[in-house]
Amino acid sequence: MKFRRSGRLVDMTHYLMDNPHRQVPLTYFSERYHAAKSSISEDLSIVKEMFEAKQIGTLETAAGATGGVTFIPRVDKSEATTFLNGLCERLEDPERILPGGYLYMMDIIGDPSLVQSIGRIFASRYRDGEVDAVMTMATKGIPLAYAVAAQLNVPVSIVRHEHRITEGSIVSINYVSGSKKRIQTMSLARRSLKPQSNVLIIDDFMKAGGTIRGMMELVSEFQSTVAGIGVLTEATHDEEPLVADYVSLTKISQVNAKEKTIKAEIGNIF
Amino acid sequence: MKFRRSGRLVDMTHYLMDNPHRQVPLTYFSERYHAAKSSISEDLSIVKEMFEAKQIGTLETAAGATGGVTFIPRVDKSEATTFLNGLCERLEDPERILPGGYLYMMDIIGDPSLVQSIGRIFASRYRDGEVDAVMTMATKGIPLAYAVAAQLNVPVSIVRHEHRITEGSIVSINYVSGSKKRIQTMSLARRSLKPQSNVLIIDDFMKAGGTIRGMMELVSEFQSTVAGIGVLTEATHDEEPLVADYVSLTKISQVNAKEKTIKAEIGNIF
Repeated sequence: MKFRRSGRLVDMTHYLMDNPHRQVPLTYFSERYHAAKSSISEDLSIVKEMFEAKQIGTLETAAGATGGVTFIPRVDKSEATTFLNGLCERLEDPERILPGGYLYMMDIIGDPSLVQSIGRIFASRYRDGEVDAVMTMATKGIPLAYAVAAQLNVPVSIVRHEHRITEGSIVSINYVSGSKKRIQTMSLARRSLKPQSNVLIIDDFMKAGGTIRGMMELVSEFQSTVAGIGVLTEATHDEEPLVADYVSLTKISQVNAKEKTIKAEIGNIF
Repeated sequence: MKFRRSGRLVDMTHYLMDNPHRQVPLTYFSERYHAAKSSISEDLSIVKEMFEAKQIGTLETAAGATGGVTFIPRVDKSEATTFLNGLCERLEDPERILPGGYLYMMDIIGDPSLVQSIGRIFASRYRDGEVDAVMTMATKGIPLAYAVAAQLNVPVSIVRHEHRITEGSIVSINYVSGSKKRIQTMSLARRSLKPQSNVLIIDDFMKAGGTIRGMMELVSEFQSTVAGIGVLTEATHDEEPLVADYVSLTKISQVNAKEKTIKAEIGNIF
């Protein structure tokens, strides 16, 4: 079956969106559509032009026999700012305040469409970071970690508090939970992270940074390096945070349980 | 800025893929591209034709003033079969066998691209199910649940074993874990599922079905109904399963820890 340009553009866009950060050889498309490589090249330049015009991302082309095209998703600053301002407004909803000054977050983390936008912003921020894997802490970091990892085309390692017999041999470390000053344990299945990986740590929330520090230690237990640290929300904290170099999308500077007010602003991402 | 058809097709495909199961008014596109509605209609029929030819899904159009177009992702049987056969082959890898006959699954569940394919198959199976929410059990069901929910454009409710002070008031039930015959507790935050929802339950693994039965009870505690039950892998079990009506993608019929063999086949989905 032959395909006209218009049909090819639809299918190519679909295919590239499904396979971000993955190099696709031109021959793949020319065989898929029974079309000459020169036509495929023209198709791709239309896709590239439109992806850039609409701030979807870009196509990187590698020349030569092993050459091909790679879709790199990108979110530009103005789009991210609009999105994050909307998120801050939602964060300031006083209904969110729970006893003890905790904040209910599942309305945000339970929404796959918001989570995907968050994932895209992080993936865009770390698109040149040569990330090999995304690490997160169960439970609420998981949806965010997958949204980032899907865009970067890398696997996810899920760290847990408890040991699970269904994970085989595990690596455990003790760490001091920063805000509660309590010693806790976190573990990761030995085979869920390849040694010598460059790991992007993603979590939903950071206060003193104890959990993130723990994950950083766990990364080095796997002879691996930290590519970056991204948190959805950071809360201001009296003491110096235990983590210096992180990217936060939002920042909660004030929770007043008595007056039922929350103050949220865009984090340190820009 | 005006856009030619070729550019519109690229951006439209991107937009529709980003917004599955969501009705988009034609005026949205005609304003986005400064194009006549008649041109937009022609664009959409090209997208629809290609989505159907490449088994990506379909576009449903609603006529009239409130009319618009909805992208319904679909995976056809032959594509799903090929994918699931590959998955079964991976499941039969003897390296997966852990002490006690447990199976390591994080290589599969940790791969966002596999997880997205799994999500698409479930979303396709339940595309006409009028699903309002996806429910799952922490931890390993979470990535699958989000992959399904993103395609169906509905929120996710995460059930947990432990209580969390950061979730506000919760609903808890006791249930009997089917294979271990142990009484356990599961809870869901009161505000993480709207009453009168039609809930699709998604989990990674089902043996006797005790956990799923628990989730079904939890659904009725929220005055809601079960739209369906989908599990990635079911294991054969000596007794009658506690759940009658479920869809499994794969089935593990035999694990021989001594001889290091696993037998996996496609589940009951077709």
